[in-house]
Amino acid sequence: MGYKPFESTEIGHPVVTYTDHKVRVTKGDDKLVESIEDVIKANLKDGMTISFHHHFRNGDFVFNMVMDKIIELGYKDLTLAPSSLTGIMNDKVIEAVKAGVITNITSSGMRGSLGEAISHGLMKNPVIFRSHGNRARSIENGNIKIDVAFIGVPNADRMGNANGMEGDSAFGSLGYALIDAKYADKVVLLTDTIADYPNTPASIQQTQVDYVVKVDKVGDPDRIGSGATRFTKNPKELKIAKMVNDVIVNSPYFKQDFSFQTGTGGASLAVTRFLRQSMLDHNITAAFTCGGTTSPIVSLLEEGLVKKVMDVQDFDKGAASSMKKNPGQIEIDGSWYADPDNKGAMVDQLDIAILSALEIDTDFNVNVLTGSNGEIRGAVGGHQDAGTAKMTIITAPLTRGRIATIVPAVNSITTPGSSIDVVVTEVGVAVNPARQDLIAEFKKHPSVPLVSIEELQAKAEKTVGKPKPVEYTDRTVAVVEYRDGSVIDEIKQIKD
Amino acid sequence: MGYKPFESTEIGHPVVTYTDHKVRVTKGDDKLVESIEDVIKANLKDGMTISFHHHFRNGDFVFNMVMDKIIELGYKDLTLAPSSLTGIMNDKVIEAVKAGVITNITSSGMRGSLGEAISHGLMKNPVIFRSHGNRARSIENGNIKIDVAFIGVPNADRMGNANGMEGDSAFGSLGYALIDAKYADKVVLLTDTIADYPNTPASIQQTQVDYVVKVDKVGDPDRIGSGATRFTKNPKELKIAKMVNDVIVNSPYFKQDFSFQTGTGGASLAVTRFLRQSMLDHNITAAFTCGGTTSPIVSLLEEGLVKKVMDVQDFDKGAASSMKKNPGQIEIDGSWYADPDNKGAMVDQLDIAILSALEIDTDFNVNVLTGSNGEIRGAVGGHQDAGTAKMTIITAPLTRGRIATIVPAVNSITTPGSSIDVVVTEVGVAVNPARQDLIAEFKKHPSVPLVSIEELQAKAEKTVGKPKPVEYTDRTVAVVEYRDGSVIDEIKQIKD
Repeated sequence: MGYKPFESTEIGHPVVTYTDHKVRVTKGDDKLVESIEDVIKANLKDGMTISFHHHFRNGDFVFNMVMDKIIELGYKDLTLAPSSLTGIMNDKVIEAVKAGVITNITSSGMRGSLGEAISHGLMKNPVIFRSHGNRARSIENGNIKIDVAFIGVPNADRMGNANGMEGDSAFGSLGYALIDAKYADKVVLLTDTIADYPNTPASIQQTQVDYVVKVDKVGDPDRIGSGATRFTKNPKELKIAKMVNDVIVNSPYFKQDFSFQTGTGGASLAVTRFLRQSMLDHNITAAFTCGGTTSPIVSLLEEGLVKKVMDVQDFDKGAASSMKKNPGQIEIDGSWYADPDNKGAMVDQLDIAILSALEIDTDFNVNVLTGSNGEIRGAVGGHQDAGTAKMTIITAPLTRGRIATIVPAVNSITTPGSSIDVVVTEVGVAVNPARQDLIAEFKKHPSVPLVSIEELQAKAEKTVGKPKPVEYTDRTVAVVEYRDGSVIDEIKQIKD
Repeated sequence: MGYKPFESTEIGHPVVTYTDHKVRVTKGDDKLVESIEDVIKANLKDGMTISFHHHFRNGDFVFNMVMDKIIELGYKDLTLAPSSLTGIMNDKVIEAVKAGVITNITSSGMRGSLGEAISHGLMKNPVIFRSHGNRARSIENGNIKIDVAFIGVPNADRMGNANGMEGDSAFGSLGYALIDAKYADKVVLLTDTIADYPNTPASIQQTQVDYVVKVDKVGDPDRIGSGATRFTKNPKELKIAKMVNDVIVNSPYFKQDFSFQTGTGGASLAVTRFLRQSMLDHNITAAFTCGGTTSPIVSLLEEGLVKKVMDVQDFDKGAASSMKKNPGQIEIDGSWYADPDNKGAMVDQLDIAILSALEIDTDFNVNVLTGSNGEIRGAVGGHQDAGTAKMTIITAPLTRGRIATIVPAVNSITTPGSSIDVVVTEVGVAVNPARQDLIAEFKKHPSVPLVSIEELQAKAEKTVGKPKPVEYTDRTVAVVEYRDGSVIDEIKQIKD
């Protein structure tokens, strides 16, 4: 396929060309249109690339609304290039693929029925999985050339000034969609709330927008990141979280003005709680957090324990609604967050990243894309990107049900082992042998129970046994890119 | 010169290509450098285009500092493409031109010794005058290709996140420079204040910046927009201001959520005061103001009489320092402000623009670039851009000293008469005959003393007599572009 295979996590200093794009000069006092059909007919052609964002998560009404029309109008051979695909979009994507409307997909990930279908050969062309940073990079350099971006927003004025922070369906940061608004040849906003002109903050600006389509409802507020803020009561997760905190506090990175990124899992959220206490105990505050933002992180900001929250995406209602009132909660775009090919992303400045995994192998390679049965059921997200932190910590239970998490070789590689520093499980902490400095440091602190990754793997295998290997065909159903655009793995079709 | 002559103020709906640009991928924890010389040597080559902004106005230390080094290093044949040139830069520009360092200039304007020297043949190649909107347009479409942008800022962090709102030399909006930061191949910040990382609001972002040069002092706070906020006591100016207010209040545009732009002259500032009272009397508030911002405009915002101040540039300290505390004072870039070739600029939405003039002729053409002696002594600024307002009002005294302001034919055309609607002088109000609707409206209101433009011209001539015509050579020393890039006039060398 002319792809360059993955070689190194080092990006170097190439000179890259940020692509040109077309702008149709717009005059007049408003861009309001009532019919998405008219907009599609006037702008979409067979073979084009369309984009969406996933900031509404499972409360998204926009994707299905637009795709329904596109399918009805009989378009063919489109490339779908959303920031990611959430469960609510699955049926529609499958329908569009079956009808030949969508023949190519690039996404951060996919789950449920869609992942299953792709893994069993739904599409002729392989899906391309890209991290959030890689997507920004690929749009900037023209590898992903978006012809029409359909961007759902909880508010917009008649000229297209819009943000994600206000309105019934507010989701907070518009992070990933900001790159689409910048580079797509045509930008179509869909909103249920027309704000007074000029609408600010203007995360998306009128200079970028071609149409504002008024629709009944862009999303279901109750399903935009619902339930993400639960504090775990699971003793295993709490144990892992406490151990992660011990790893952080006893690392050289826990010092005044440090920085960190956490995820949304139960353990991750619990880490935030332990870390808060450690920061208070040691009288240390953080310069920033980045990545997807949760309510516990916003609480740290409001408490003054974190100075800035660099926010590309909000995972719960609390984080989404606090953006408009907290001047320290800063909306950043996908490039600023994680693009490897710019003049410096937030992830390059990260001291500590706490990430999850479906599988980790004894080379520290991480899989966040495929389940133990080989089916696609995850997303690269910012995993490869935040993996460049000075200390990247993977949290995982040793086993999940009857399935080992620490394995001899991952089903598919998402993030290379060379960028993973520490793996924390409930039975011990394994440090990448490449990080002898960390091993030496942790040896001084008995609260960090060091084990080797091989020991963890053996223990997992002892508990649940050797799994029957997944049987694949030779056919590639998905290509996993590393954040620099090289291919780090291919996912094969499962034998039926 | 292959230029298209000016035809119409109508821009239409062309599809334009926004240019690509180069990015050198940057990794590492800071971009701080001590020596501007090192940066210049590593990045500048003979024949390149360099840019600066004029937001520090006459308090700017950055331009002379950088140009001194460039001259010293013996560079040749550079194109100078600043947002504008202020008096403090004059000597250095003349020195650089004489030394062959600068051989091309494009600017919004120039004054004093530089304008005089250019008018008398200092340069071989004609200067190109572009409005603020046209400059943004020309950078976006690649007509101005900036190789290295030198951007002075009152604060920046180690990675280049910077704004104009904070620090000793704060000037408020970074408006014009934001386009340079977006499109220049190399972006060099110069600052005297290194802020904590990550520095926000980040009007310029780390993703855009190559170097942060720490210097002793970027500007003289006392000379950044000093003295601009005086309220006039000049009876002629007060009379004009009151008449402008009467024109506005009796026009169809004075209604709830109207919008306006004013300038900085004594009459303009007085208009703001009269208009405030009219808004209170009529219980009407404005949706927005745009353009260069002054303290009286900020007061209207704080009083709730104006909902949003769309701010591309601040003309005084009060306006500069209020930006960080007023969420309704919105920083906009040069494209959003006035670019004719985007998807909608603020000026396209303007109801009323109140602009000044050096000369207006009986075809309503306005000259803001050349004095009565033919010398360059002004700037296009946003004149052509805001001239697209639904009602563009020119304020001018009938005569200045022994010089007529209303003339049979302007010395040089900056803004075409077809975009001027009303001329207000202390002896009466002339409405462009193309606006019979306005004439009919004003006839109902005796507080608007209508006269014809010919009467005004005759009256001016009667007062000061016919001037001796300026004698020019055939040589073009400056080209005046209209905002769409067509040539509206050429300024000739003055016969010595």
